[in-house]
Amino acid sequence: MRNLTEENLTEAVLARLARAENPRFKEIMTSVIRHLHAAVREVGLTEAEWSEAIKFLTSTGHKCDGDRQEFILLSDVLGVSMLVDAINHRKPAGATESTVLGPFYIEGAPDLPPGFDISHGGPGEPTEVSGHVLMPDGKPITGAVLDVWQTAPNGFYSTQDPNQDRFNLRGRFRSDAKGAFSFRTIKPTSYPVPTDGPVGVVLNAMGRHPMRPAHLHFIVSAPRFETLTTHLFVEGDPYLDSDVVFGVKNSLIVPFKPKPDGKMLQATYDFGLSPL
Amino acid sequence: MRNLTEENLTEAVLARLARAENPRFKEIMTSVIRHLHAAVREVGLTEAEWSEAIKFLTSTGHKCDGDRQEFILLSDVLGVSMLVDAINHRKPAGATESTVLGPFYIEGAPDLPPGFDISHGGPGEPTEVSGHVLMPDGKPITGAVLDVWQTAPNGFYSTQDPNQDRFNLRGRFRSDAKGAFSFRTIKPTSYPVPTDGPVGVVLNAMGRHPMRPAHLHFIVSAPRFETLTTHLFVEGDPYLDSDVVFGVKNSLIVPFKPKPDGKMLQATYDFGLSPL
Repeated sequence: MRNLTEENLTEAVLARLARAENPRFKEIMTSVIRHLHAAVREVGLTEAEWSEAIKFLTSTGHKCDGDRQEFILLSDVLGVSMLVDAINHRKPAGATESTVLGPFYIEGAPDLPPGFDISHGGPGEPTEVSGHVLMPDGKPITGAVLDVWQTAPNGFYSTQDPNQDRFNLRGRFRSDAKGAFSFRTIKPTSYPVPTDGPVGVVLNAMGRHPMRPAHLHFIVSAPRFETLTTHLFVEGDPYLDSDVVFGVKNSLIVPFKPKPDGKMLQATYDFGLSPL
Repeated sequence: MRNLTEENLTEAVLARLARAENPRFKEIMTSVIRHLHAAVREVGLTEAEWSEAIKFLTSTGHKCDGDRQEFILLSDVLGVSMLVDAINHRKPAGATESTVLGPFYIEGAPDLPPGFDISHGGPGEPTEVSGHVLMPDGKPITGAVLDVWQTAPNGFYSTQDPNQDRFNLRGRFRSDAKGAFSFRTIKPTSYPVPTDGPVGVVLNAMGRHPMRPAHLHFIVSAPRFETLTTHLFVEGDPYLDSDVVFGVKNSLIVPFKPKPDGKMLQATYDFGLSPL
């Protein structure tokens, strides 16, 4: 296997997968190698461009730490995350649609009682979020865990902002015997994804804005049901039609309306989980 | 642009490139997005696999530092580097074939006089490397710079090995009025690419050995000529037909034979450079 050329190199690389033990790994690597080589050929990648690509991947890696995930951000803004989501969640009727996890989830948010204020009285429009966790046939799911996170009014998640406590605007709630949950927070705001890293440079070069429409993140889980990763979006947000990560679904848009007593906003939603 | 699906997501992402100012960047990103999405669809990538891919890219980035380039290594073992090389160097007759740069080149090697021993009398089989730098018609190129680097007998480049000086087995030589160059070194040995990082894990999962056949690296440059990045491989090496980075070309294989006086080995090669 010498003197490989433009014409026979790809097949030569694929032939070296002959002894891969895991058939699924082999399938994925075959596809990755074919498409990588096809893209290089298609655009006639120059050595200077290859070198830029190496630098971009390296700096994207160096930007990642425990609280910053620049490769997830890259996957998000290139639509790869939503494509993986779409392929893996062809939902039955009655199940809530999913959307991207995003790069800002952290584990370990505190377990909190119903009605708890995850903004801890901080700035923003006070809002009550409530609803149910249900089976596709409408029966309640008791003890489902709702892991919630969102940005502060300055557009930053707690992990991006040294002035917020680590678990500010984050918490875990449980559905009760009727499947009901509720918590207090503030109305989320639209915000830019981080643009101070390599992905920001790429977004700018693509001529794209970095904005996400306002939303609340949820991971809803219960034994014997498929875990649901989704958002609730704020009705009327100006970025609903140009979300930088392509995540908006109409079924996830919720009005944030004043409560009858006028003292705070209210948003309600019933989550549907698919049985495993 | 809401409710994007498996079917329309890729076109929606591509539509967001409408305002990209640089047409070449737009062309490359279009190809990258199409092929990324096609690979995800083709294999039906699961969320767990996506998550593994994010972790792999992140740890590959974290493995990179000033002297270790894990993304170049990845590009090399997937045949991408040799494909970029092949596309960019369709050489005219009389020009030496190129091969991969590899991840171990460092700038700043010392300028050395003809005949200098880059092994500094260190262990290994003493070897004299000599030849010429020529135009395609055979006329000499005077003052061409030959930037040379290779492994020690333990298989490590200086930057991998705390027991070697930073520029051990590295140096820059110049061709004389007749285009001639010469230097002293040791016979290179075959060696494994680094397997202690994420690329090593992938190589192992692909069922592949990590070996490169023994070689000397060269970057040969001269004003008004295309810079040549290439190797000289050692004739008879057992890995010539299974180089982990797919870099071997017959025209670059050189015998390392005893000199007539029997005191050391000798390897000779005439490099041909293409005019710009």
